[in-house]
Formats: sequence, structure tokens, C-alpha cells
Amino acid sequence: MDQIRLGVIGSGYWGPNLIRNFVEINAAELIIVSDLNQERLWHINNRYPFISVTNDYRKFFTMQLDAVAIATPPATHYQIAKECLLNDLHVLVEKPLTLSAINAQELIDIAAARNLTLMVGHTFEYHPAVRALKELIQSGELGRIYYIDGVRANLGLFQRDLNVLWDLATHDISILLYILEQEPISVSVQGMACVFEGVHDIAYLHMTFPEKILAHIRLSWLDPAKVRRTTIVGSKKMAVYDDVESIEKIRIYDKGVEVPPYTDTYEEFKLSYRYGDIVIPHIGPSEPLNIECRHFLESIINHSVPQSSGEVGLKVVKVLEAAERSLANSGSQEFLVDSEVAINAEIAA
Amino acid sequence: MDQIRLGVIGSGYWGPNLIRNFVEINAAELIIVSDLNQERLWHINNRYPFISVTNDYRKFFTMQLDAVAIATPPATHYQIAKECLLNDLHVLVEKPLTLSAINAQELIDIAAARNLTLMVGHTFEYHPAVRALKELIQSGELGRIYYIDGVRANLGLFQRDLNVLWDLATHDISILLYILEQEPISVSVQGMACVFEGVHDIAYLHMTFPEKILAHIRLSWLDPAKVRRTTIVGSKKMAVYDDVESIEKIRIYDKGVEVPPYTDTYEEFKLSYRYGDIVIPHIGPSEPLNIECRHFLESIINHSVPQSSGEVGLKVVKVLEAAERSLANSGSQEFLVDSEVAINAEIAA
Amino acid sequence: MDQIRLGVIGSGYWGPNLIRNFVEINAAELIIVSDLNQERLWHINNRYPFISVTNDYRKFFTMQLDAVAIATPPATHYQIAKECLLNDLHVLVEKPLTLSAINAQELIDIAAARNLTLMVGHTFEYHPAVRALKELIQSGELGRIYYIDGVRANLGLFQRDLNVLWDLATHDISILLYILEQEPISVSVQGMACVFEGVHDIAYLHMTFPEKILAHIRLSWLDPAKVRRTTIVGSKKMAVYDDVESIEKIRIYDKGVEVPPYTDTYEEFKLSYRYGDIVIPHIGPSEPLNIECRHFLESIINHSVPQSSGEVGLKVVKVLEAAERSLANSGSQEFLVDSEVAINAEIAA
Amino acid sequence: MDQIRLGVIGSGYWGPNLIRNFVEINAAELIIVSDLNQERLWHINNRYPFISVTNDYRKFFTMQLDAVAIATPPATHYQIAKECLLNDLHVLVEKPLTLSAINAQELIDIAAARNLTLMVGHTFEYHPAVRALKELIQSGELGRIYYIDGVRANLGLFQRDLNVLWDLATHDISILLYILEQEPISVSVQGMACVFEGVHDIAYLHMTFPEKILAHIRLSWLDPAKVRRTTIVGSKKMAVYDDVESIEKIRIYDKGVEVPPYTDTYEEFKLSYRYGDIVIPHIGPSEPLNIECRHFLESIINHSVPQSSGEVGLKVVKVLEAAERSLANSGSQEFLVDSEVAINAEIAA
Repeated sequence: MDQIRLGVIGSGYWGPNLIRNFVEINAAELIIVSDLNQERLWHINNRYPFISVTNDYRKFFTMQLDAVAIATPPATHYQIAKECLLNDLHVLVEKPLTLSAINAQELIDIAAARNLTLMVGHTFEYHPAVRALKELIQSGELGRIYYIDGVRANLGLFQRDLNVLWDLATHDISILLYILEQEPISVSVQGMACVFEGVHDIAYLHMTFPEKILAHIRLSWLDPAKVRRTTIVGSKKMAVYDDVESIEKIRIYDKGVEVPPYTDTYEEFKLSYRYGDIVIPHIGPSEPLNIECRHFLESIINHSVPQSSGEVGLKVVKVLEAAERSLANSGSQEFLVDSEVAINAEIAA
Repeated sequence: MDQIRLGVIGSGYWGPNLIRNFVEINAAELIIVSDLNQERLWHINNRYPFISVTNDYRKFFTMQLDAVAIATPPATHYQIAKECLLNDLHVLVEKPLTLSAINAQELIDIAAARNLTLMVGHTFEYHPAVRALKELIQSGELGRIYYIDGVRANLGLFQRDLNVLWDLATHDISILLYILEQEPISVSVQGMACVFEGVHDIAYLHMTFPEKILAHIRLSWLDPAKVRRTTIVGSKKMAVYDDVESIEKIRIYDKGVEVPPYTDTYEEFKLSYRYGDIVIPHIGPSEPLNIECRHFLESIINHSVPQSSGEVGLKVVKVLEAAERSLANSGSQEFLVDSEVAINAEIAA
Repeated sequence: MDQIRLGVIGSGYWGPNLIRNFVEINAAELIIVSDLNQERLWHINNRYPFISVTNDYRKFFTMQLDAVAIATPPATHYQIAKECLLNDLHVLVEKPLTLSAINAQELIDIAAARNLTLMVGHTFEYHPAVRALKELIQSGELGRIYYIDGVRANLGLFQRDLNVLWDLATHDISILLYILEQEPISVSVQGMACVFEGVHDIAYLHMTFPEKILAHIRLSWLDPAKVRRTTIVGSKKMAVYDDVESIEKIRIYDKGVEVPPYTDTYEEFKLSYRYGDIVIPHIGPSEPLNIECRHFLESIINHSVPQSSGEVGLKVVKVLEAAERSLANSGSQEFLVDSEVAINAEIAA
Repeated sequence: MDQIRLGVIGSGYWGPNLIRNFVEINAAELIIVSDLNQERLWHINNRYPFISVTNDYRKFFTMQLDAVAIATPPATHYQIAKECLLNDLHVLVEKPLTLSAINAQELIDIAAARNLTLMVGHTFEYHPAVRALKELIQSGELGRIYYIDGVRANLGLFQRDLNVLWDLATHDISILLYILEQEPISVSVQGMACVFEGVHDIAYLHMTFPEKILAHIRLSWLDPAKVRRTTIVGSKKMAVYDDVESIEKIRIYDKGVEVPPYTDTYEEFKLSYRYGDIVIPHIGPSEPLNIECRHFLESIINHSVPQSSGEVGLKVVKVLEAAERSLANSGSQEFLVDSEVAINAEIAA
């Protein structure tokens, strides 16, 4: 394969970033872009006159393409991705993969049957800072992980067909699954539809993971300041990942609490605090989306399973489905894996 | 009354601040300090040789005092405050007032029967920044309040007899009751005992208030950085109160979302965002505890009900009790007021 | 004129930004780009295959162009701009206009004689935040201006043919001339060549303006953090412009000192400080370079004098020349305007 | 000697901090405080009823004291310190030691003749963060020091008898002498009297040290925000000391520039930048003044030369005198040591 012949479906909010990156990557040739909105197509045409444009992505299927990247509204992911797979195109689809686990499983099955690459655009999995976080956790440098607290908030793009969970939590769930290498046992959510009835614009997502790790994510489209912060507290060290910072994205605090071996009397009960240096590791300035796009192309070329494969996308969708059930259920605790495993885990905890 | 003759019980972590303030306020004469720990008494004696010290607060009852301030561990508040009231002393007791609503009610009743002032040390109610927040809300400047998000976290003083709720949430609950002039309808809490089994050191406290206001507070004794932040989101403006900032404690964001009157088609669904100036109002540098101590003395002198009266302390204890029930119940939603009111409020919502 | 036919000379560090903007502006058609470096041309060709490329800008003169934008090393500005003007092209040249006032004057004269637009790329004059600063000063909101302190520092691109003054101070000088609507009377500079002998990489630029306004700029290519901060202190209010901030670029402090009318005794000498609110005005997110490029095209179309005209560029070069003399002279005070004006100004001060 | 019997002269702005610390240190007994202002004495009496007060410090000389601490206006330091020394008291005097080098030398001589401790209150020399900075420099961790940039600015206490140099620069000069273990060769200052004629409220202090180290300090009583920042740039690493930060006072940047061995052609001229981690070392929370007070007492007890001895105070005064000459001379470069040494240093540079 010389260059992978590529089409992009959707050039609204996120699509132009995919287009810009694929234009710059030599391994791909971006042939065509589709969008329902004629104005967007004119814009793309003006910017990249060498790329064809169309308002019907089905035109792609006659153009000898190898692959497509889909950046349309989430509700359309399943249908469009399915058509593309059935037309033997490798597919990169924006997150969330689909709006239901059943649909996600169907896409996975089609891709497997036809030997096609199916990848989800979990961009943060390709972020050098998130990869550094994963390394901190998996190397044991932070010690045993106690809890993870995340905030993803700003005055955000409201949507009508999707709430803040499907829009924002997707990022955090994919980050957590990636850095912890675990899936949550249970999920509960509390939220509110402040502005537009029926569409939750704020939500608090609570997850329990195996080994008693707790994760809590605050999500908001209705916040005065942009916040993108993840705090990871371990028994040895603590780390904060602040994606709003342009350079100093990760801080590692050599801070902790040491519990005394026994505490016979009240006076003896003294925890010892450890205060140490803070280290801000140097994180290179690579663009995560560029790494993601290259990874998609390499997965096609090497016939290898991409990191954010369809299966990973399905896992994230399952968490989101459970979160939706909890939201509909006044914040009930919803278990994710088959009940036996979950109950055993609970008992152990 | 010339000067109010005062004793302070407890000179450990917080007591010295009470002592310093009462020494500087002319309306009071600080006569005596008690503590079980002889070392603390030596320290006080060295610093303030003109103040008597004792390891038995019952000695106070023979010294013609008018009032006491109690800064002992919370588990002892009820017993000590009761004795003091029964010995006809006006009482300022540190927060939380007691560890149970029944005990709090008993103290209120004794104080009322004997015509004594009973006040709780909800220091934040006397904080100029919190008072400015209340004014922002009550004047309508923020519009209808959608939600309040709070964080109170640091590498904090672990305690054995009390969890993070009783230690830290007391502050936030008293702030919310004060600025909203409302009590929550329901409470739910999720938390974890990371370091010391049985003592929760992190907790997420979720409260619903009348008129659909939601409040969510993150509490942690196990955090790399000190965070004291309250975000208030209203339909007109948004405000952030950051108590870690030394000068710029409050920011008012002229930011909001305007919903269009109708949305027939998808294209028509466009929320309009309003971005405006940020204002950081000048907040004077008064010490809240000094204002609180003066208010206690004035309440005694004027026979007036203090702002953070025993009744207010009781309301906070009731919320904490409900929060404890929820924590014991895997995060169940616990209703606070009699069920009919709560259910009606839920139905209306 | 339908669309202005345009060429860009130089596609190294800054050129690609000009290219990107002119591609997106409808009033221009970007025909051709030149660069001596073949690799840069390949890059441009890959990104914008519809634009011709060449390694000889003289090829432009046969292509019926209307205008050029020059983004080559400063030492080449004069020669290239002159050739372009003599070939009847309107010219936008990057800052600094030239490396000597004589050369700048010659370009101005040629452009005037041939009725061509000559504009310098003082991008900050087109920055919404700088325009807001100018409005704050010129409206009198800050009161009488006492002094301006600036810092422009980072671990910066070292150059061999130019020192930090010509590279960085150009920005600050053009900002000051623009917002104060004045030229400095005198200049002095202290600096050091830390890394590379003979090329100053840090410098402190001191300027006096009429009406006793003092300006001081710290410039450094050798600093641990990126700093872009301008503090303006007036008799009524103070303002800080921080260009590193992504959103909150300007802060207006309602702070000041009021001098008592007379001070007979020591006790009477008490200045009264005024502390008030801080306001962070909303600044829209427009890209200054885009505004600059449009302004260049409009100046051509309307035969109007551009804001950052050749004359403005000349004034900045004169300040830089005086600064160079001071640097060579151990920080001597160098006067800018003819000595009589300067001396009168000094006497008045 | 059991406890050192101590008096404090001056209880205005700084005196109360000395009083508070000496009360808490067991090695001293604070006997008496003097102040011309009766109100201040009442305040001290109310706060510390066990300390005698007087409005005539000469009363000290009859009270069998061992030592005094002087916190009066700088113009009075010389006269009061001299009288105290002549009455055989060890002396800690606030900075600056005196307002002239001649006076400082006289105090040093008297103290030497009478075998008394003379110490200046250069508090920052006892600051754990400044000591950490010194260690960074002296250990060679930063490499060769290129330059030091300092800022000390806020809306500050104006004074009538002293300008901003004597008030603020004293701190920076004492810090520089301490951490560099060198004295400057030359000084030049540019400043302005913005608010009160004849009293400079802003100044830029420029110093050259041996080995080509340059230091530049911005000083302002007229600034919107409190800034206390020192940047030290070395050939290996860079450090920033920010005293406004409550916890993270020092940041060490593993950043630098590496010059290539030769640069034959333009293309070969490429500096290589090194970007690495940032480390924020843990600095304990000790109060510098407390360390300083203890050091004064220890110097008396051990008959040892204190760190910030009279001689050190004299060196700082000499720099301030030279700075004053420069200010009076439109920013002339003033040499500090005898001219031969200075000229040789210049030639070598």
C-alpha cells in the first residue's frame, strides 16, 4: 500500500482537526470530505482546494478509498460506521463509538468478519501527559491507588440529543480505563438539567474499580472557568494532571500519610505526614490527535489491533449506559460486569 | 456589665486563636484557660502570664465568669457545654455543636430556659467573602441559582473519633445554609476510608435544596494541594469563592446561557452564550474569628440571638446525621425534613 | 480590483502564519511563496498544493502580482522591500522595517513616489488587548500615566545577526508608541551577551517619554518561563496586560495613592491608599495577524495610510538605533529627537 | 548567663514582630519596650501586660539589660544604636544599619572596642528559601551564574525621609551579597518620584558583580500587585524564588542553552536548547525572623560573629550610597570598590 486513500465524513466542530492532520501525514492521502452543510464544504474547499467535497458520504464507496474517519454527531456513528465497514473501509470513528453497547458490538463483529480496522477516537489515550500518568501508576511510583478525582467543566457546547455524560464523561472514562487497565465494577451518577429540560448539563459520576479504587468525575457545561484536572492519590505519592496548563501539565507530589503499626492509646494515634518535593516532568509538545491519526494508519498497514480498538470503545459505551441508568434512577448504584464478579468484589471490599 | 469575664476550654489546635482574639478585644477579659495537656498550659502561661490556667474546667464555675468558649474535641462538646450552661455561663462552642441532634436540642432548651446565649463557632458565617457571596445570591445578581459546587481538600489532620464529614463538611453546610437561607431536602454521600479503616477520609456530599438547587461538596484529608473553592452558578452570572487566594477571594463572571424561546428544528436549537467581564470585588482583610468573637460578646450584652445560634448549629448537625446515614447506606438518598414536604418538593421538581 | 494577487517571501518561522491567514481571507489570492530553503518549499507545497513555490522571489515580478508580504531575516528586509517597491508591488514587511533609519526612510520615499502601500508587521498594534489598553490610557480612565513596566522573556530563539533588542524590543516599542501616541525623548540600555559573545541575549531598555512618563522593558532570550507582561501605572488606576494568559489578558486595578494637599508635620504626612475592585474585561478571541492582514489589503484597496505605516516603522527603528548606541556606550542616555526639543523637555521635567 | 535580658526600641510596624518572637524564645527575657507613640505602648501593654513600657529608651540603661533590638525609623538607627553600644548593650538593629557608611563604620568600631555583638536585621538571610538558593548557587548546581533579575513591588508604605531604595532594595542587596558571596563592582539606578516630589517611589537598580554576573532589581511602591520574585539564570539550570507563594517558593528549571563548539556557516549556527523537569523543593515553614532572633541570642552567648554582622550591614549601606549617587546623577555608573580593582575587573570583562 503506497498511501492510504482516506475520506473524512463530517467537517463541523472536530472534523477540520482530522482533515488538517491527515493532510500533513504522508502515509495518508486525503481524497474527499463530506458534510450535510454546504457552507462547511465551501470552507473546506477554500482551505484545501485539492480535496474533493460532497454532501453524500455514500459517494465515498465508489472512490477506491481504503479508510474513513467519521466525525459526525454521535447519534449517527453506528449507521455511518456500519455502512462504511460493509463497503470494506477501515474506520476511525469519533468517540463515543455508538450510543448503545449492542450497536458497538455489531460494529466490532462486522469489522472482525471483514478483517477491517475499527478504531475509536479516544484522543486522550494518545496524549503524552496521559501516557505519563499511566506510567506513574503502572510502575508503582504512586504506590497503591486510593482514589482519582476528575473535573471536566467549562461553559460548553450544549447539545440537544446528548447530555453532558455522553459528551464529556467519555473522555474521562476512556482515560481511566487506559491508565488503570481496569474496568469499573459499579457506577452511579447524580446530575441536573439546569438550562434545557431533559438534557443534563451537569453530572457527578462516581465509579468503583476493583481493589477498592474509587473514581469521581465532575462534569459541567455550565461553569465559569475551563477546568480539566485529574488528581490521583496513591499511598506513596500523589499526582495532578491539569490539561488547561500549557506546559506544566503534570505535577507529582512526594506527599503521603504513613499509618503507625498500632495505636493502643489516643495519644499514640498519630499519623505521620510526609512532605517532599514537587516534580513537574517535562512533557513534549506533540499533538495527541496527530499521534492518534498516525496510529490508525499504522494499525491498517500492520494489520494490528489499535490501542483504542472497537472493544475499548464498547467498554466505554457500557459504562456510559450504566451511568444513564443510574441517572434515570435517582443516582442508583449500577453494576457493570456480571453480577457474580461484582458481588464478589464488593464482599472483598 | 463592664467587661465580660471569660474562660476558654481547650487550647490545642483552635483554642489559641480564640485566646488571641479575646485578649485583643476590650469588651472581654480573658480570665482563665483550661486544657488536659500540661504542655499546652505551660505554653499559654508563657505567652500570656496574666491568664490563669487549669487542667480542670470545672474550676471555672467558682470564678464568677460570665461566659466560656469551648474548643475541645467534638465528642466532648455536648457534655462540657451542658455543664457550663447549667452553671449559668453563656457558651460559644466550636463547630460542630454536638455529634447528635438530640444533644444539640437539649443544649438549646437549657440555654433558653436559663436565658443564656448559646452560639456555635461557624466561623465562615463571619467571613467577609462569605457575606459578599450571600449578598450576591440574595440580591438576585446571580439570577436563579442552578447549582453550587464546593471543594475542601488538603493533606489534613486525621482524627480517630471523627470522619472527614464532621471535620470539614460542617464548614460547607453552615456556609450553604447561611448564603442560601434554606435547608437541604435530601442528602447523599459517597466516601472511602483510604488510610485508617473505619474513618472516612474522603467524601462526596450531595445535597438537594428547595427550588431545585443542587449542591455538591468534595471533602478530602488526602489531597496534594490545599483547595478551598466554592463555585456558584446562576442563570445570570457565576461566582467563584477561593479561600486559598489571599486577596482575590471572589470572582464574579458575567457569563451565562440564554435559551431561545422555541426550537422547532435542529438548526434553530442554538443556545446563546454571554461572555462578559470578570469582577473581583475588594474584600477587606478582617479576621472572621475576630468578628465572630465580638458578635458573641455583643449577643450577650444585647440579649440578642446570635447569627450562628444553637438552632443554626442544630440544623447543621441534622444534615451531618443524615449524611452519616447515607454513608452507612452505600450512598442512599436521605431526606431531612418530614417526608411530606420532601416528597412534594421532589414531585414539583 | 477583484482579489489582490499576493506573494509571500519567506516561509520559515513566521511566514507560514502569513500564508495561512492570506489563504483564508477572500480579499486576497495567494499566488506564490518563495524561500531559499527547498525543504520549506516542499512543506508549503504539500500543505497548499494550489500555491506556486520558488526559491527566487524575483520570479514574482513577472507574475502580475499586486502585493507581497516579506517574512525574511531582518537584515534582508531593506533590499527585498526596495526591489518589490521598485517593481510596483505594495509591501507588507515584517518588523523591524529595516536595520537602519536611513534605509527605512528610503523605502518610505520610494513607496510615496510610486503611490504604493508600505506597511510594517507590528502585529501587536492589531491585538484586541493592546487596543483595549490604548483606550484605557487615551480615555483618561487610568489618570495621568506615571510609568510602564514591561517584561518579554523566555528561552528564546537565539540569532546570530541580531541581538535581543532587535528581536524582542521591537514589539514593546511599537506597542508603547501606539498606546501612548508619543515617541520617547531618550533611551538607555543595559544588557549582556551571556551565551554567545557579541550577541546580547538579555537587555534592560529604559525610555523617557514627554510628560515625565517612564518606560522600562526587560528583554531576555534566557529565562526559565515565558513572560509577556506590561504593567501601566496611572494616577487613578493601574492595568496589567499579560499576553501569556489565554483569556484574562487585561486586569484593571482600581487602586491608587492620593496625596494630601499639604503636609506640615510628620504626623500629617499620610498618603491615603485606595483599594477597589479588579475588573478583567472580556476581550474577544480574534487573531491579531488576521486583523493585520485584512488591514493591509484594505489599505491597498482604499488607498489609505495603514496604521503601522512605513513612518511608524521608521520611528521604531530610530528608537532601536538609539538603544544600540546606548548599549555600545555602557548604558549612556541617548536622546532621540533633535537636541533642542529633548533639552526643553528635560528642563520642563 | 541564664536568660538574656532584652529591651525593644520601637513598636510601630516591625517592632511587634520582634516582640512576639522574643516573648516566645526561652533564651531571652523581654523586659521592656519603648516607643514615642503612647497609643502603641498601650497596645503592647494590653497584649503583654508583663512587659514594661516607656517612651524614653534611655530608661533601658538603668535596667541591667544585656541587649536591645532597635526597630525605629532608619534615620534614627545610628544615634540610638550608638547610645546603646556606649551603654554596653548588645545591639540588633533593623535594616538598613545606618544611612551612611561612615556612621556604620563608627558603630562597628564601638562594638569591637567594647566586645559587643552588633547585628543587622537582614531577615532574608535567615529565610530557608534564600538559604536554599545560596546552596543551589554555591554547590554549582545552576552552573556559572549569568544574571539575576529581581522584582520587589506592591502598593507600599510611602515614607517621607527615605526613598524606595533604602526601604526595599536593602532586602535585595543583602540577599545578593549573601547568596553570591560577592560584592558588586558597580551600580547604576534609574527611578522616578511619581507621587511625592523628591522621594523616589520606583527605581531600577542595576549591579555588576565580579565574573561578569549582572543583577537587576525592579523596586516599586506603586504597583497593582505584590511581587517578590528573584530569577537566577545559570549556564546549567535556572531557578525562580517567589516569596509571594505560600508553599512553592522555589522552582528549579532544568533548562538551558548549549552552544556548539564552532559555527562556520549560518546553517551550522544552531544552539541546542535543553528542556527538562521542574523541581519545587520542599521548604519547611520556619519563620525567618524567629531564626534571626535566636541567632542574635546565640551570637551573644557564644561570643561569635553573627551572619548579618555590622560589617555585612556596612557593605549593604555602601551599595545603597553608590545607588543614591547614581540616582542623583541621571543613572551614572558608580563604582564601589577602589577604582583600580574596579577598572581591572572591567578590563577583564
